[in-house]
Amino acid sequence: MRAKVLVTLKPEVLDPQGEAVRRGLVQLGLVGIREVRIGKVIELDLVDSPDVEATRKLLQRAAEELFANPVIEDWRVELDAVTPTPQG
Amino acid sequence: MRAKVLVTLKPEVLDPQGEAVRRGLVQLGLVGIREVRIGKVIELDLVDSPDVEATRKLLQRAAEELFANPVIEDWRVELDAVTPTPQG
Repeated sequence: MRAKVLVTLKPEVLDPQGEAVRRGLVQLGLVGIREVRIGKVIELDLVDSPDVEATRKLLQRAAEELFANPVIEDWRVELDAVTPTPQG
Repeated sequence: MRAKVLVTLKPEVLDPQGEAVRRGLVQLGLVGIREVRIGKVIELDLVDSPDVEATRKLLQRAAEELFANPVIEDWRVELDAVTPTPQG
């Protein structure tokens, strides 16, 4: 099973790195960009477990304790559906 | 319109940061983790454009020229569907 945890700065926290990227994009000629925010993505390859909800809870805990700084960052856990065993 | 560009190390490139996180997760008591890879996510808030394909191409170019190091990194552009105007 594959999972992703996305960690991004809270909307009220300034992101100077994102602002620098936005300016870089303008210099590349990309117009119409309101805002850019930079975050982290943690991709995990997990042993398949039938209990998806337990896995989600563990990853929520990992995000809170290890991946993110809860004072300035938000996180989102995304679990890919378990690939069904091919039939026939 | 919102877009995301995910930048991750190519599978054949070692990720010591990811390995350190994997060990941290084991210490937290999370079992069954085969591999952890750390990447970047660039979230963009764009002015709505009817030409989604043109926007995708621009972001592909931005990813190649600005966000990623094509020698060691892969990237994926994800465009959220334009929110339809409420009817009625």
